[in-house]
Amino acid sequence: MAGLPARVRCALTGSFAAATAVQPATPGEWAGSIAPGWEIAGNANGGYLLAMAARALAGAAGRPDPVTVTAHYLSPGRTGDVRIATQILKDGKRFATGTATMFAGDRPLLAVLGTLGDLSQAGGPELIEGAPPELPSPEECVRVVPAGTFPPPFMGHVDLRLHPDDAAFATGHQSGQPLMRGWFRLPDDEPVDSIALLCAVDAFPPTAFNARLPIAWTPTVELTAHIRANPAPGWLRCRFATRFVTAGFLEEDGEVWDSTGRLVGQSRQLALVPRG
Amino acid sequence: MAGLPARVRCALTGSFAAATAVQPATPGEWAGSIAPGWEIAGNANGGYLLAMAARALAGAAGRPDPVTVTAHYLSPGRTGDVRIATQILKDGKRFATGTATMFAGDRPLLAVLGTLGDLSQAGGPELIEGAPPELPSPEECVRVVPAGTFPPPFMGHVDLRLHPDDAAFATGHQSGQPLMRGWFRLPDDEPVDSIALLCAVDAFPPTAFNARLPIAWTPTVELTAHIRANPAPGWLRCRFATRFVTAGFLEEDGEVWDSTGRLVGQSRQLALVPRG
Repeated sequence: MAGLPARVRCALTGSFAAATAVQPATPGEWAGSIAPGWEIAGNANGGYLLAMAARALAGAAGRPDPVTVTAHYLSPGRTGDVRIATQILKDGKRFATGTATMFAGDRPLLAVLGTLGDLSQAGGPELIEGAPPELPSPEECVRVVPAGTFPPPFMGHVDLRLHPDDAAFATGHQSGQPLMRGWFRLPDDEPVDSIALLCAVDAFPPTAFNARLPIAWTPTVELTAHIRANPAPGWLRCRFATRFVTAGFLEEDGEVWDSTGRLVGQSRQLALVPRG
Repeated sequence: MAGLPARVRCALTGSFAAATAVQPATPGEWAGSIAPGWEIAGNANGGYLLAMAARALAGAAGRPDPVTVTAHYLSPGRTGDVRIATQILKDGKRFATGTATMFAGDRPLLAVLGTLGDLSQAGGPELIEGAPPELPSPEECVRVVPAGTFPPPFMGHVDLRLHPDDAAFATGHQSGQPLMRGWFRLPDDEPVDSIALLCAVDAFPPTAFNARLPIAWTPTVELTAHIRANPAPGWLRCRFATRFVTAGFLEEDGEVWDSTGRLVGQSRQLALVPRG
């Protein structure tokens, strides 16, 4: 999409675009709806909610791309209507910064602080100390398909293929490494734009599932994503790793690489390690 | 400080505590002042500003410790009075989440979204895939002392000792590795609490100075810190590294370890790589 002015990019179509769509309601307020089926253990996936909030913030900012966004998760999101209050704090030459707070009724679900811009204008010197994760082909990886509560219904809305070494946790064979690697795309060849990347960085099973620790779930406190570029079409290679489980918290660091081998996003989340 | 209820912890005294102090003004608004001398190239250090905003947010939340805070930098901060508008979005059992926006007059300087709690109550299983950086003793490292504009006046308010391998950039001998390692403490044995850690994670020279790239400065767009614990007294071991300079951006990842060898904080910032 490079070269097209931000405001004339075509609206995306597809089930992800529809499930994250927002409409302007009153000034500074947007209406959306948490679609059925995007949940994990009954609660909407955090990256999906962040993507919807980011669409509202992008609309308020008049900028297409989240450059860096942070979400703090306040309450679980359930299927149904939501409103998103946006406030632009600075509207600069290259970037705009603002907040978006999603509510179900009067209950805040998540708070977002983000800086948005137009990534098609990016450029500069390069230094890359890293590489996309090596993965068997998508066909040779383990497709995660929903089956009742686990894998959760959310997995029916994304196409996730785990590295076989990282998928064996599901049959009780944790690798011992708090690592999740795999491929990500949206079903039906729906394009993954900079906003859909916010879903990709929270779509994989928790790294802790491979850690051989007594950790059954890791609710996200905070998730930050840095988006470097709109991905080229095709599969995304993803890698999530945890280095430090301490004091009841863990971090999960993510990298997303596109089909041309370019780093398109980085993420870090802080999650709780529930006690007992 | 473990074991003391959050609200009866003693007020810290010292020049950092004084320079970051805030007073309640009207409900939801705090008054502070950017102290002279905390600047780099004429602009107040970003970690220093974040610490001041976090004090206001901690006051508004009635919780002592920033668990995870994100700042977006909107305008340079100059010496003088500021006001900080705070809003608590959720006041939960264990954590409170809110925003703090710092203004000089009507000009927003930084926007903060944070979740606060009491880290003395933390605990759980541990997994540590990492270690404090190996450093020569503080006496054998390179003390960074202000000298006109470079090193900047800010360095007179912190006690920073760089690993000799990472300090040679100052004499034109970049290591080639985008890495900065060293010791941090506050002068006069002022304790470093969870809020002062927010200054530590932005106190070191940019990793890019060691990268052998045409990068003279790297203005911060966004900084996120995860605080795991209040540090034990003594020197902090710090490590900052950059892996990806792409599309006009770079990330800088930080780790801070206390004198007992415990990870007390992680940070990541997204900075601009100015063109030309």
